Amino acid sequence: MNEFSLIEHFFKPFPIQRNDVLLGIGDDAACLQIPSDKNLLVSTDTLVSGVHFLPEWNPSDIAYRTVMVNVSDMAAMAAEPCWATLALTLPELNPSWLESFAQGLKKALQECHVTLVGGDTTKGPLSLTLTIMGMASHGKAVKRSGANSDDIILVSGPLGAAALAVKFLSRKDLPLEDTQELMDKLLRPKPRLDLMSVLQKYASSAIDISDGLGADLNHICVASKLGACITQENIPVHSLVKKYCGAQAVDLALSGGDDYELCFTVPAKSLDSLMKDLEQMHLVCYPIGVMEKGQGLRMKTENNNECRHFRPSGYSHF
Amino acid sequence: MNEFSLIEHFFKPFPIQRNDVLLGIGDDAACLQIPSDKNLLVSTDTLVSGVHFLPEWNPSDIAYRTVMVNVSDMAAMAAEPCWATLALTLPELNPSWLESFAQGLKKALQECHVTLVGGDTTKGPLSLTLTIMGMASHGKAVKRSGANSDDIILVSGPLGAAALAVKFLSRKDLPLEDTQELMDKLLRPKPRLDLMSVLQKYASSAIDISDGLGADLNHICVASKLGACITQENIPVHSLVKKYCGAQAVDLALSGGDDYELCFTVPAKSLDSLMKDLEQMHLVCYPIGVMEKGQGLRMKTENNNECRHFRPSGYSHF
Repeated sequence: MNEFSLIEHFFKPFPIQRNDVLLGIGDDAACLQIPSDKNLLVSTDTLVSGVHFLPEWNPSDIAYRTVMVNVSDMAAMAAEPCWATLALTLPELNPSWLESFAQGLKKALQECHVTLVGGDTTKGPLSLTLTIMGMASHGKAVKRSGANSDDIILVSGPLGAAALAVKFLSRKDLPLEDTQELMDKLLRPKPRLDLMSVLQKYASSAIDISDGLGADLNHICVASKLGACITQENIPVHSLVKKYCGAQAVDLALSGGDDYELCFTVPAKSLDSLMKDLEQMHLVCYPIGVMEKGQGLRMKTENNNECRHFRPSGYSHF
Repeated sequence: MNEFSLIEHFFKPFPIQRNDVLLGIGDDAACLQIPSDKNLLVSTDTLVSGVHFLPEWNPSDIAYRTVMVNVSDMAAMAAEPCWATLALTLPELNPSWLESFAQGLKKALQECHVTLVGGDTTKGPLSLTLTIMGMASHGKAVKRSGANSDDIILVSGPLGAAALAVKFLSRKDLPLEDTQELMDKLLRPKPRLDLMSVLQKYASSAIDISDGLGADLNHICVASKLGACITQENIPVHSLVKKYCGAQAVDLALSGGDDYELCFTVPAKSLDSLMKDLEQMHLVCYPIGVMEKGQGLRMKTENNNECRHFRPSGYSHF
């Protein structure tokens, strides 16, 4: 088996078909049709063995996570994910590894209705680069830079579980259901595509929390030329993070990435209407603070209304 | 310096601006506008250190080659390259390495009028994945699958020099100008964007010769459900390949990839008109054979009109 038969066997017979794919895998380039009222959204993420995942992980999980991490960038723009290319660098051609990898890839692509339209297979240290492409109505993609002063900051779900899972990777003494829940958060993130309609309707800015809430909210602040003040008790901390981290739980929720929840802002006057829409959709988001004039991140507590500056810490590769 | 300041410093201030980039580097995704009469073309290629380039190469050359190799896929579709994302995996943050890399990247992007709209920077073994996106008028992208029986097969330039450069990487006894010419062919491929208009006007199929003429012509044959017969003496062999390879020169021209010339087919009745157009543009392409019914590749010589089957050999990673 060479890389051509590999592609034929594992990646070409994928099930998601879209009418807008005029030419898929198997030419020098894929050819896609974008409706005139839509914009194209594009994002690329690399996952490197030993950095973003461990080589001994189930290949199905590696593939699944790679797709979902990328789809989360579409969710953060309130865009519909549509197509992807996958660049797969492999140390060897191991058919059973590839079989499992292709399964996870297929599952993730099916769940998000994304068609694999191309890619590259090369020999080298294990790593994956996925480029996800999607669509949003013209001018409707939600950027980081649109937040206004007094906008309410929200988070789409409890934070810290994926970071705790990384911390606990070698611990064998946890109850099985806790280990499973944590590993599920790490390995099988669910991009928040379910928030697409409310983001399109209400959000002035949005970002996916892949580097940690503090670092990512700071990206919104810098892009929007504003600051933010959040109330410590309002940060949604995952129950297992509370259970295992005690006083450090909030820190982990603030600095731990990998949850792939979203942070977004809405005008204060829209908050009630947003919360009603979310309730009808059986979804919960958590207001955690307010955008303010003056750069930087600030935190207050319910007992102490004085905002204190804090520096975001988040994952940095170097 | 972390990866955010790296992106700010090296990759954000790039010069090519396009009106269709609604949102470039620095958000969860780039946002692009595609005119309604255009199709989107997408292709991804990975270059791995030690496989596609040597780590001791000038970083500027590595970057330049990565862009051009990808742009060649647009040239093969007769599409205009427009935007790119770059996933860069680096073992360390070395500012002087990055400075040189950014220079080569900038030069290549400028030459091809491509805007860098996003990417990812991760820590790990050196490799680069570039996703190139381009446009072609609706339905006008030139595919591998469009060749018809009796179409003439052409090659866009002399072959084998890049493969010879790889073979001779450690040889120190060549005349300096030969070494320079060979290394230039390997390090600074020129994607054949100059052929875009003639391909759009005449070509029934096209492919870029990155895996070797034999292997890539075979891709056209398989996609078009046809075979091909080429005349050995008509294969354009690079003069340095003739000089150094003697009787093996044709083999290297047939099997050596990396030249990034194009192979394409045109209806026999269009050949004269194509050749006149090329002459007016001061370009030369080489008719090498004919598409035929019956699968597989065949070769004949000027002295022996009997076609003999041959199996394409080309680069395979595994």
